[in-house]
Amino acid sequence: MAVNLSATLAANEDIERRRRAGQHVVNLAFGEAGLPVHPALREKLVAASGRNGYGPVAGAAELRDAAAGYWTRRRLITEPAQVVCGPGSKSLLYGLLLAIGGDVVLTKPSWVSYAAQADLVGSSPILVPPPPGEGGTPDPELVAEAVLAARALGRTVKSVLVTLPDNPTGLLAPERTLRRLVEVARELDLYIISDEIYRDLLHDPGLSYTSPADLAPERALLTTGLSKSLALGGWRIGVARLPDGADDLRRRLLAVASEIWSAPAAPVQEAAAYAFTDPPELTERIAMSRRLHGTLANAVRDRFLAIGASVPAPHGGFYLYPDLGHLGLGGAAEVTRLLLERHGIGVLPGHAFGDDPAAARVRVAVSLLYGDTNEERTAALNSTDPLSLPWVKASLDHVALGLAELAVSFPEPSHALAI
Amino acid sequence: MAVNLSATLAANEDIERRRRAGQHVVNLAFGEAGLPVHPALREKLVAASGRNGYGPVAGAAELRDAAAGYWTRRRLITEPAQVVCGPGSKSLLYGLLLAIGGDVVLTKPSWVSYAAQADLVGSSPILVPPPPGEGGTPDPELVAEAVLAARALGRTVKSVLVTLPDNPTGLLAPERTLRRLVEVARELDLYIISDEIYRDLLHDPGLSYTSPADLAPERALLTTGLSKSLALGGWRIGVARLPDGADDLRRRLLAVASEIWSAPAAPVQEAAAYAFTDPPELTERIAMSRRLHGTLANAVRDRFLAIGASVPAPHGGFYLYPDLGHLGLGGAAEVTRLLLERHGIGVLPGHAFGDDPAAARVRVAVSLLYGDTNEERTAALNSTDPLSLPWVKASLDHVALGLAELAVSFPEPSHALAI
Repeated sequence: MAVNLSATLAANEDIERRRRAGQHVVNLAFGEAGLPVHPALREKLVAASGRNGYGPVAGAAELRDAAAGYWTRRRLITEPAQVVCGPGSKSLLYGLLLAIGGDVVLTKPSWVSYAAQADLVGSSPILVPPPPGEGGTPDPELVAEAVLAARALGRTVKSVLVTLPDNPTGLLAPERTLRRLVEVARELDLYIISDEIYRDLLHDPGLSYTSPADLAPERALLTTGLSKSLALGGWRIGVARLPDGADDLRRRLLAVASEIWSAPAAPVQEAAAYAFTDPPELTERIAMSRRLHGTLANAVRDRFLAIGASVPAPHGGFYLYPDLGHLGLGGAAEVTRLLLERHGIGVLPGHAFGDDPAAARVRVAVSLLYGDTNEERTAALNSTDPLSLPWVKASLDHVALGLAELAVSFPEPSHALAI
Repeated sequence: MAVNLSATLAANEDIERRRRAGQHVVNLAFGEAGLPVHPALREKLVAASGRNGYGPVAGAAELRDAAAGYWTRRRLITEPAQVVCGPGSKSLLYGLLLAIGGDVVLTKPSWVSYAAQADLVGSSPILVPPPPGEGGTPDPELVAEAVLAARALGRTVKSVLVTLPDNPTGLLAPERTLRRLVEVARELDLYIISDEIYRDLLHDPGLSYTSPADLAPERALLTTGLSKSLALGGWRIGVARLPDGADDLRRRLLAVASEIWSAPAAPVQEAAAYAFTDPPELTERIAMSRRLHGTLANAVRDRFLAIGASVPAPHGGFYLYPDLGHLGLGGAAEVTRLLLERHGIGVLPGHAFGDDPAAARVRVAVSLLYGDTNEERTAALNSTDPLSLPWVKASLDHVALGLAELAVSFPEPSHALAI
C-alpha cells in the first residue's frame, strides 16, 4: 500500500514551507486552478446552507439531472440514472477502480493519483507510453501487447484509463488514437475510464473533442468535476457517467460510495447542480479562465523554449511537460531539485507521473501565477493582457531568469566542448 | 467485496419509495439526526463561501486547532498535529482500517458500515458479542480468545473497534469493560479504534464517560464528527485523533486521504472549526437535541415494552435495540418485513449489524419522528413536552398501534395455548 502523501500535495507543502521561510519560490507544482469562486456559485451555496440531510448516495436528483444535461449538451445523451456524484472526481476514480477490480492500464506518464489509487485498491497498474508525440492515452498497439502478456501471466486486467486533455502533458489525444484504443478495448473486453476534468478548458474551443463515450458508450466510464473549470477544488464535487444499463457496476460503485464518503456535501451539491446547467455567466467565466490558462501556459512554454527545452504545445488545462534533457543535468529528480533549491522554481518530477526517472521531464502548472489574492486573480481573469500585470510579469521574469541561470551554470557537455 | 448499498441507506430508500407511493410508513430506520442546521453554522458556511483552495489534506489549521481544543476540554490533551479531518467520520474509519491493515475485531452487533468497510479493504472482521447486558464493546475475554485463535490460524489481527455510546444498542460501555479491553489490547498489541460520534448525545450529561484514549493513549484512535450532535450529516465533516507520536500511522492515513477524498469541503471545514470550539449557542443546541433524543427514545421504548419486548434502556444517541423474540414471529428479517409491510413501521434487522439472523432484534432510530419540516423539527426541539406535539403524537400512536397489531395478530405459541 502507498504510504506517501500524493507527490503533488507533498511538493506543494514543501514549496509553501519554503515561501513562509522567506525563500522566493514561484510555485509551478500545484494543479490548483488559482481563480476565485464565481459569485453566482457563492449565492447558490449560501441559499443551500440549510441543507443538512444525507440525501441519496448517487447524489441529489437535481444534481444528477443537471449532470445528465451537461453531457447531453456535449453530444452524449445521458439519463440521470447513469450519473453518480462524489466528493471530487478523484473519489469517483478510486471508487471505479475498487468497483471494477483487476489491474488497470495507465499512460506513462499520467496523473500521480491513478497509480497511487490502484495501489490502494490492490491493483497493479500497467504503464504504457502514448504514441510518439501524443499524451493522455496509452499507445493502443502496446496496450494490446501488454494486456495479453499480463493475462498470459495469470493477471486480471479490466480497464484502461485515459485523460482528455491530459495532465501532465496538456495534450489532447487525437480521435484516430481513441478509435484504435476503443477497438483494442472491445477485443480485450476492457472498460475505458476517461478522466475528462479538463474537457472544458481546451484552449481552442473550436478543437474537436472525442470522448471514448462517443465511440464505445457500452464500456466508457467518464468522470469530471468543477475543480478545474470553475476552480472549485476545495469544494470537492465530481460526477461520473456510467454506460446505460451498467446496473451491476453502478450498484458496486454506490456500495463503495456509501461505505466511504456517503455523498458530496449537500450545499455544494446544490451549487454544482446549478453549475452543470451551463448557465451563461459560468460559461463566460470558463471561457475567460480557458483564455487565461492558455495565455500563461504559452508564456511559460516560451521561457522553457528559450533555453532550448523541448515542450509539447498544450491543447488544454494549465500544464506543460518540458524535457530539459539537453542540459545534461541528470534525471527528473535532480532537475526538480536544482530548479527549487537554486532557482526558486517549484515543479514536479516526471517520475511522480510514472515517467522514466532518468528523463529530465518535469510537470509545470501555471495556474498559481495569476496572483496571490482574489483581487489579483480577478484582475488577471479580466485582463486582455494578463502578461503585463506587474505580479504576473514578475513571476514570469523570475522563471525566465531561473531557467537562464540553470542553463548557463550547467552547460551540457557537448555545448561545453563546442566553446 | 461488498456489492450492496449500506443496509441503512437501502432500507431508507425503500421506505421513502413506499411513502411516495402512498403507504403510511413511520421511518424508524434511518440514523439521520432529523434537526435543522443551527443559524450560527449557516452563517459560518456563508462567510466561508469564497474558500475554494484544496488546503492541507489533514484539514485547515483552524479546524485542527479547534478539534484539539474540543478533546482537550474533554480531558484528552491533544495537539493539532494529532488531528486528521475527513468528509465524515465514516471516511476516516475507512481510512484507518486501510492504513492499519490486518483484520479487525468488531462487536456483534455493531454499526453496519464497519464490517462493510473491512470487506472493502480486504480485511475479515471478527465478530465478538459484548458482555451480557452491555453494548458497544466486545467482551474483552472473548476478544483475547478470538484473536489468539485467529492468529494461530495465521491471520493478522491489528485492531478492535468500539462505539461509545453505541449504535445499534444505545448503550455506553462501562469503564470496567473498557479497562479490561485496554489490558487485552496491550497484551495483544491491538489498536483500539473508538467511534465517539454520539459522545455529546449522552442523555444524562452527568453520566461518566471513559474513552479508550483516557486509558491507553498510545493505542487509541478516536473518530467523531458533527453529523449527529449538530445534525450536519449532509455536510460531511469528521475528525480523527491519533496517538501523540504516531507518525507512521498518520502518514499512512494522510496518504489514503490524499488519494481518495483530499479534504472535507473547505467552507464546511470553516464552519466545523467554529463548532469544535464549543461556543455557548451550540452547546445549548446540543443540550436541547440530547433532551429531545432521550425523550423520544424513551417514549418509543415504552411502546415496545408495552407489547412485552425486551429493550435495553439507552444511554445516548437516538437508537433502541428491541428484541421481539417473545412473539415467536421468526428472525430479524421476518419481523422487519412484517413491521414494514403490514404495520407501516420501518426498522432495520439486527443481522444488518452482524447479529444472529435467528434473533428477532431490530434497530429503531427515533430521530425522524421530530417532524417533516424544519418548522416542526424546531418546534420539537424547543418544546418542553415534544410528545404532545400533534405530528409527534400521531407517529407515536401509529407505532403503538402497529406494534399492538403485530403482537395480537401473531400471538406467540405459548400465549395462544394459554387462552
